[in-house]
Parts: sequence; C-alpha cells; structure tokens
Amino acid sequence: MTGGYLKGRIRREDIITAAAAAYGELGYHGSSLREIAKRVGISHAGLLYYFPTKEALLAAVLERRDAEDSEREQLTVPPGLAVLRHFVALAEHNVRHPGIVDLYSRLAAEAVAPDHPAHEYFVRHYRAARDGVHESFAALAARGELRDGVEPALAALTFIALMDGLQVQWLTVPGDVDLVGSLRFYLQNLLTVPL
Amino acid sequence: MTGGYLKGRIRREDIITAAAAAYGELGYHGSSLREIAKRVGISHAGLLYYFPTKEALLAAVLERRDAEDSEREQLTVPPGLAVLRHFVALAEHNVRHPGIVDLYSRLAAEAVAPDHPAHEYFVRHYRAARDGVHESFAALAARGELRDGVEPALAALTFIALMDGLQVQWLTVPGDVDLVGSLRFYLQNLLTVPL
Repeated sequence: MTGGYLKGRIRREDIITAAAAAYGELGYHGSSLREIAKRVGISHAGLLYYFPTKEALLAAVLERRDAEDSEREQLTVPPGLAVLRHFVALAEHNVRHPGIVDLYSRLAAEAVAPDHPAHEYFVRHYRAARDGVHESFAALAARGELRDGVEPALAALTFIALMDGLQVQWLTVPGDVDLVGSLRFYLQNLLTVPL
Repeated sequence: MTGGYLKGRIRREDIITAAAAAYGELGYHGSSLREIAKRVGISHAGLLYYFPTKEALLAAVLERRDAEDSEREQLTVPPGLAVLRHFVALAEHNVRHPGIVDLYSRLAAEAVAPDHPAHEYFVRHYRAARDGVHESFAALAARGELRDGVEPALAALTFIALMDGLQVQWLTVPGDVDLVGSLRFYLQNLLTVPL
C-alpha cells in the first residue's frame, strides 16, 4: 500500500464519518456536500473527487453501517433463541453508540418517501430483518418454544418495529427508556422457555 | 366575525397546513419560512405577520395535531380495555391519514436533539402517552385481565414504541405492514380477555 493510497483511504473514511454525523444532526436533505467538506476540513472540489454526488456519499454511509452490523453478527448462528439473543446484544451495542442510532432513525423517517435515495435501502433492510426474525420464530414454534397463538410473522414484524420505536423514545429521553430491558420483556412474553 | 378577521383565520390555517406538509416532506430543519410562504402563495413578509419565527409556526402545527387527536379521543373513557381500543381506533384513523403520520415520524426523529424546538413537546408527548396506557394496564392487572408476569409499566412503554416503529415501516412499504392487525396481535398477547 503506497502512502498516497493509504492517505486516500483515510480521507474517504473521514468524509463518511463526517457525513454520518451531519445526517444525524441535520437529516440527509438538510446536509449539503459543502457543509460536509467543511467539517472534514477539505474543499468542496476535494470532496467531489471522492464522492461526485450526494447519493454516492449516502450509499457509502449506509454500506459502512451494514458492514459494521455484519461484523458483529455471527452469520452462522442457526435460527432460534440465539438469533433473538443476537438482537438483544445489538441493542446493548446501540445503547453505547447513540450517534449511529440517531443517524438510522433520522434516515429511516426521511426515507419513507419513495423518491428518497435511501428508500430502496430501507425497503430491503426491513424485509431482511423481518425475514431473519420470522425464520427464528418459526423454528421456535416448531419446537414448542413459542406460546400458543403467537403467529411467527406478526411476532417478527412487531419485534423489528418495537426496536425502531424504542430507539426514538430512548434518544429523546434516555433516562425514561430501558431499551434492552424492554426488548427482553417483549421477547420473554412470547416464549415458553427462558430467553 | 368581520370578513377581515375570517380571512385572517383562513390564511393562518392555510399556513399551518402548508407547514405541516413541508415538515413531512423536507423535515423541520429543511423547511424555510420562505418556502412555506411560496406554497401558500403569499409573500415572506406576509407569512411573518402571522408567524414571526420558525418556532412559532412549528408550535402551531403541533398544537393543531394535539387538538385533532383530543377531538377524536373521548377523554371520559375509564382506564382499561376501552383505552386500548381507543389506541387501535387511532391507528385505524392514521392508516387513512398517512400525511399526519409522516409529519409526526419525521419530527419525532429530528426532535431527539435537546436543542430542537419540538424536543420538549415530544418529551411531554411520550410521557403522557405512556402514563395513560400504564394506568390502563395497571387497572387490567388489578382485575386479573393481564397475563401473569406482564409488568404494566413495560407493557405501556413497549406499546407506545411499537406504534411509532410500525408507522415508519408502514409508511416505507404500506403493503408489507398490517398496522392495525399488528397492534391487536400485540395487545391480545398481553391480555387474558378478548380485546
């Protein structure tokens, strides 16, 4: 790796970090490339060298977020209790990283509009999250570890929605909301075995 | 009521309607008074006559939202199943008014920042919503209508969070999310009696 290449990578990562912070504070629509360049301490033209459009930079921010999540998730975990415990662990991680949660909540609320450049990302994100949890609830149901009458698809949908809704309330008044305890409460209430 | 006064009231309501639409599309931070004036078809100075600051206009939008909600809610309903059914009815109303839901979700995500002019509004809003539902879950518990081990405070917190989280997912992909069915599923799962 040449010094120039390494310097370029660091600069690129710096821009992504600054963009994530700006999106969290001002929203995607409220953040200009000019403002983000200023935060990094480079010129507008210098930023355009790495990210020629606003959309390209947003895509890089979302890609990094997914890469960080996948790194933490052991994708070899079989469907069932272990997957649910993983989500609780993700919530424990999020409690220590409010900036990431803030960025995610802001973008999710903006990206409900079909013409938002992150819209398709969130459509895929929600489906993948629901499908993953659905599979685990179905496996639990097959083993008799889900309470009678609990429909795995609805349990999955409400679980993902609950995580999102709790995050916004927790960001608003951290002291009022036990993020991790609430998720445990919800999951335990669906199960016939300890979480 | 003089013609001039009536005209003023209508103009004021028009501005609030345009502001709510702009906040939903662009977020509060992304919406300028100039842009809102343009939507109403009046001058910037004309808008400042009614709302001298951005914050004053935001306050009017939130006040109208609360007034509309209170109008629908019968505040005389005693704590218990009837209150929960009210929230399900509110969700049924929201499904027919995605614009209001969009505005609320966008503002809630922006207003997590303590210096956002709607921050205190959301702090109060969440507390009032949780307290109201908590009281009902506690009444149900006292009558043995809540399943064993269901903690009323956590049930209330997760119920409000679930509503918020479901709304964002539903706005993103309406066809994927049964907003009302999911709330019913969640509530029924906590109760020993039919909702």
